[in-house]
Amino acid sequence: MKNSVDEFFERVISVKLPEDRSCIDIIDQTLLPGEIRRIGVRTREDIREAIRKLRVRGAPAIGVTAAYGLALLATDIKEETFEAFYPRFLEEKEYLAAARPTAVNLFWALNRMDETAKANKDKPLPEILEILFREADAIREEDVQISRGIGEIGLSLMEKLKKPGKQIGILTHCNAGTLATAKYGTATAPMYMALEHGWAPEDMHVYCDETRPLLQGARLTSFELYNAGIPTTVQCDNMAAILMKSGKIDIIFTGCDRVAANGDSANKIGTSALAILAHHYGVPMYICAPSSTIDMATPTGDEIPIEMRDGEEITSMWYKERMAPEGVDVYNPAFDVADHRLLTGIITEKGLCTAPYKEAFEALGIR
Amino acid sequence: MKNSVDEFFERVISVKLPEDRSCIDIIDQTLLPGEIRRIGVRTREDIREAIRKLRVRGAPAIGVTAAYGLALLATDIKEETFEAFYPRFLEEKEYLAAARPTAVNLFWALNRMDETAKANKDKPLPEILEILFREADAIREEDVQISRGIGEIGLSLMEKLKKPGKQIGILTHCNAGTLATAKYGTATAPMYMALEHGWAPEDMHVYCDETRPLLQGARLTSFELYNAGIPTTVQCDNMAAILMKSGKIDIIFTGCDRVAANGDSANKIGTSALAILAHHYGVPMYICAPSSTIDMATPTGDEIPIEMRDGEEITSMWYKERMAPEGVDVYNPAFDVADHRLLTGIITEKGLCTAPYKEAFEALGIR
Repeated sequence: MKNSVDEFFERVISVKLPEDRSCIDIIDQTLLPGEIRRIGVRTREDIREAIRKLRVRGAPAIGVTAAYGLALLATDIKEETFEAFYPRFLEEKEYLAAARPTAVNLFWALNRMDETAKANKDKPLPEILEILFREADAIREEDVQISRGIGEIGLSLMEKLKKPGKQIGILTHCNAGTLATAKYGTATAPMYMALEHGWAPEDMHVYCDETRPLLQGARLTSFELYNAGIPTTVQCDNMAAILMKSGKIDIIFTGCDRVAANGDSANKIGTSALAILAHHYGVPMYICAPSSTIDMATPTGDEIPIEMRDGEEITSMWYKERMAPEGVDVYNPAFDVADHRLLTGIITEKGLCTAPYKEAFEALGIR
Repeated sequence: MKNSVDEFFERVISVKLPEDRSCIDIIDQTLLPGEIRRIGVRTREDIREAIRKLRVRGAPAIGVTAAYGLALLATDIKEETFEAFYPRFLEEKEYLAAARPTAVNLFWALNRMDETAKANKDKPLPEILEILFREADAIREEDVQISRGIGEIGLSLMEKLKKPGKQIGILTHCNAGTLATAKYGTATAPMYMALEHGWAPEDMHVYCDETRPLLQGARLTSFELYNAGIPTTVQCDNMAAILMKSGKIDIIFTGCDRVAANGDSANKIGTSALAILAHHYGVPMYICAPSSTIDMATPTGDEIPIEMRDGEEITSMWYKERMAPEGVDVYNPAFDVADHRLLTGIITEKGLCTAPYKEAFEALGIR
């Protein structure tokens, strides 16, 4: 299976830097799931536009793109001294930072590149440029390792539940996959790790909630898994209950946006309902959470603000014509908070956490 | 409010016969929610097409349309004797019956009209024609009375929960409204009864699940309620949990397709999840069920077959472009079964039933 997994990532990975550094090679996610087109972006305009237009999306993938982008743009700066180089480097940084005004990971990655440049200012410029590429590589590689850590733990849970000769049924929600990250995703990492550890794709069957209103599950997650050769089914969000009742689901993995100190987990709207249904039907549910998303300064989920989004996403965005009466009120929260008491566990790259979560996080050194 | 309720029904009621009997007057539901257009259908071709193309939909509304249709077509038969009239009457009946091959209520209404004709065969033909119109009126009026019975009970439950000076929050799923029935709907009947009993529209706030994949909640229920002047919100199905958690929902009403003897209730996909969420959050949930939908011959919901529908309804039907990868598996059950243990009650036109349901149904004479 190994070769075919490699071939899958070659085709579908969200962002990579070719060896000749001629461009950043991204999969244009605005064309999914209809068309798989990889594009090379090289100019400051194209790099910024790729992030702005969501050709590349997902916090880690955006961070990696911005880091490689800034390293590439730095090589275009033809100056002799760091003093002359640095103001122009900052201009490129600010230019890319304007791509998406609320993307924290974008600023984080650009700032880290900036700090790296400053920390090495006494070195010769060609060496600084190489160090910048190595830093971008490190940003990517760290995300790969986080996914790998989460994936190994998730896989060990799958191994315990897997019955010989029977597919393990997995439910997931939204897209916390390779398309959103540097390689393995978070919620999808256990599945890709399974393939890398020699599971046959047919050993699994993944059920993807379509994830209204933005349909990340139908458009992106099912696309990924189907292309990885894993048996994949798409269903409406309101069908998760009948799937669980019928015994098709052995385990649930979702990503998360932010975890409170008590384990309450904010994730894409619909996750809190999944947790209630999973608890009702006795299906184990795990939140896949890089330790950076665990916010010990937020005591409970009640303190996590919920972004309200435009009603047009529900009533008209994808449709041939508007699907609700003109003028009617629309309620469109982007996230909800899964109650920690309903979760089986929270998987971080540092280890598996179970209740009581605060103590479990602290035991892993998360503060 | 009374006048405005009347005016609402005048505009939005699914089917009516004008006093001059010049046609059947229906609202063309294929144009909703974008356009309110009432059309008159009079020829056999137009009547059948209106049913076939879902211009009129919902079991009771189809039955009423077919009954009026057959009465109108009977007036076109220019014969002197019942013996000459009846074969041509049967031809019209069979023609209309072919409109939708699985619509039980269509055949039921047409057979009832047929029985009426036969039972009166010794009367003069002009009198038989009048009797047929009266039978169609009776079919409509019986449905109105069933809705009214359900609505009065639902309203009494709302009255108990309503806090002075505060809107009562109601959640509903799919469309079991005026558009599907002769007048008040089933799940919507308590709301329309409230208006007729002098509640202000602003005394309520109804949250309509959009109801994927066919969007009956967004397209039809929210259209009805918004046009009745009731504060109405549309949300995705996966947002019901956060609505309940935030305290916005005081009571849930849904329709049903079939109720088993133990109270397990089959209804539009997503209803079983609502029941689990409602139970979790302590929100009372009622199924609005005409006694004709209670099937005492079916012991539990496990014996109710679930219709599986085409995956295209999920992946492409309403969309500008396909929203899942070509070839991926799709799971599209049309119904699920709400567990009777999670329901607060089942409202029939004969009375409110609570657990144990079998005994409650029997006490109302339902067998």
